[in-house]
Amino acid sequence: MDIKYIDADLLQWNGNKTYLPISERTNYLSLGEGNTPIVELRNIGNLVGGQIHSKMEFMNPTGSFKDRGSAIMISALKDMNVSEIVEDSSGNAGASISAYSARAGIKAHIFAPSTAPKPKLDQIAVYGAQTHLIEGARDDSTKAAILYATSNSIPYASHNLSPFFIEGTKLFAHEIYRDMNGNLPDHIVIPVGNGSLFLGAWKGFSELKKQGHINQIPKLHCIQAQSVMPIVSAASGKKWGSDDVKPTIAGGIAVGSPPRLKQVTRVLKSSTGTSMSVSENEIKKWQLLLANQEGLYIEPTSAAAFAGTEKLIDTKIIQKSDSVLIPITGFGLKDNPPEL
Amino acid sequence: MDIKYIDADLLQWNGNKTYLPISERTNYLSLGEGNTPIVELRNIGNLVGGQIHSKMEFMNPTGSFKDRGSAIMISALKDMNVSEIVEDSSGNAGASISAYSARAGIKAHIFAPSTAPKPKLDQIAVYGAQTHLIEGARDDSTKAAILYATSNSIPYASHNLSPFFIEGTKLFAHEIYRDMNGNLPDHIVIPVGNGSLFLGAWKGFSELKKQGHINQIPKLHCIQAQSVMPIVSAASGKKWGSDDVKPTIAGGIAVGSPPRLKQVTRVLKSSTGTSMSVSENEIKKWQLLLANQEGLYIEPTSAAAFAGTEKLIDTKIIQKSDSVLIPITGFGLKDNPPEL
Repeated sequence: MDIKYIDADLLQWNGNKTYLPISERTNYLSLGEGNTPIVELRNIGNLVGGQIHSKMEFMNPTGSFKDRGSAIMISALKDMNVSEIVEDSSGNAGASISAYSARAGIKAHIFAPSTAPKPKLDQIAVYGAQTHLIEGARDDSTKAAILYATSNSIPYASHNLSPFFIEGTKLFAHEIYRDMNGNLPDHIVIPVGNGSLFLGAWKGFSELKKQGHINQIPKLHCIQAQSVMPIVSAASGKKWGSDDVKPTIAGGIAVGSPPRLKQVTRVLKSSTGTSMSVSENEIKKWQLLLANQEGLYIEPTSAAAFAGTEKLIDTKIIQKSDSVLIPITGFGLKDNPPEL
Repeated sequence: MDIKYIDADLLQWNGNKTYLPISERTNYLSLGEGNTPIVELRNIGNLVGGQIHSKMEFMNPTGSFKDRGSAIMISALKDMNVSEIVEDSSGNAGASISAYSARAGIKAHIFAPSTAPKPKLDQIAVYGAQTHLIEGARDDSTKAAILYATSNSIPYASHNLSPFFIEGTKLFAHEIYRDMNGNLPDHIVIPVGNGSLFLGAWKGFSELKKQGHINQIPKLHCIQAQSVMPIVSAASGKKWGSDDVKPTIAGGIAVGSPPRLKQVTRVLKSSTGTSMSVSENEIKKWQLLLANQEGLYIEPTSAAAFAGTEKLIDTKIIQKSDSVLIPITGFGLKDNPPEL
């Protein structure tokens, strides 16, 4: 199939160029996603002894960074006259794809774990997608979705596999370059489940490097919950199997068998980043710290990245004089409220 | 007291000038609020037979437009070395003020109706404010807050009375001017309780007019729930008393005795806008339409403005060839989920 691309300058571009896989601008179904602000978090910086900025990815139309990917993926599918899709998700991607599908007039089937937080499941349903609740671990939703798609001959529009999705998340990197006036952070610390933001960031920075805008890509660090750490295990050569999955409050990164595991570990190596795992208590602690120190109500999944940053500073992988950027990937309102 | 102002160009200004009542830029406690996208809603436009744009005010750090006002008000209070405040709110302003107070290191007491939606009350608590739940109508929370502030000699930082709050919400108008390249919409339809966005919009457009950037201010229409309609009543010369208040799902505009009622009716007249009330069923209908037609999960309070727009078009107060802008003031995730 021949895929056409539009120039992304409709996204208020500024010097550097990138392209999006949509045939015409009028087919671009934006809800205003992206262009999220970058804010310095001085109170958190004082706590960990570093210079911390956050990019507010939760300030997207459905409350998570997934909207970047969904906007491009659903626009591209609409472009191809797809009218019905199947997707699986722990909640955020499901809500996002349900929203953009509604706007596109595409019927969406979202397969999600029956244990997903109620606000996320409610949100998926409100936009109008058909929800299929699946017992078991996150990976069982994937299996059920693939089976359903195959049996019913409906396209499986997986945000974890679709190349279009990463064409959307790559703009995260382009915006950092634009908004920090080329002064890239030394480190970007990302919570990683399937890696759609991690790989998108790598693609965006790689484009900028190829075009000569930057000489060096920031170190991309990968944070996982100790309860679900296939990437951390792979990167350190430790054994890991789906049987090792334990429950975690960081549902957005609870992916036991990430299909792009090899790609993620390759990017980790290329960007000289480190992978690190954090405990449930560390995640809880950081969720509350962000709220009561900075006024930011973030998902446990996002809190994991702050917990990981503290460890990366403690172990001197990040120096106190270095600059660090942490995406806040999802809004706290989307999850069960923390215990106070 | 002598209040100093900073030039608002730190908000990425563009030609027009406005000023904010904060003495130094470093005292400006932004969480990245404002600069919300404006998106055309073609599916909704086709339904009502008009040209509809929305400004995504729910894509603010705490999920509502209140962050514009809180950012300025709390920064100004911090500037004056205030360390503890009292506020009352149906939920959105309370969450917003709780968030910015956390960042500022100010202790906040939020008085809210005990019937406020759980997600909003959870959110207020997560940021760290002390919540005081008050039985009775929305206005009883105001009375209790004033009593507490007076008895304990703590500043009453009411978002409904503070002039600083409107210095924040006025940027809504400046951004519309900037982002629509001066092609202002003919109509702006706003859900109004206390009028902090309505009056802010008027102030911003008035500044633009005074500076010669625009000749005419868009018609500012005011939408209320039939269950709580003091402004609609006043504008049409009908009697209204607090005893007339009935329950409404549009909690953000359930204000029985708005302290700035006269100011709002004056602006309505000056901008040649119309006030209109809508039923609970109309609000529910529009909340679901926004979700399943456009992929936007909005608060019932915001849905009221769409219900009102439909009526303004039906009654030909808005012509089908006119352009209309409707702010989406709050995220649906902040309220109880709608019945499907």
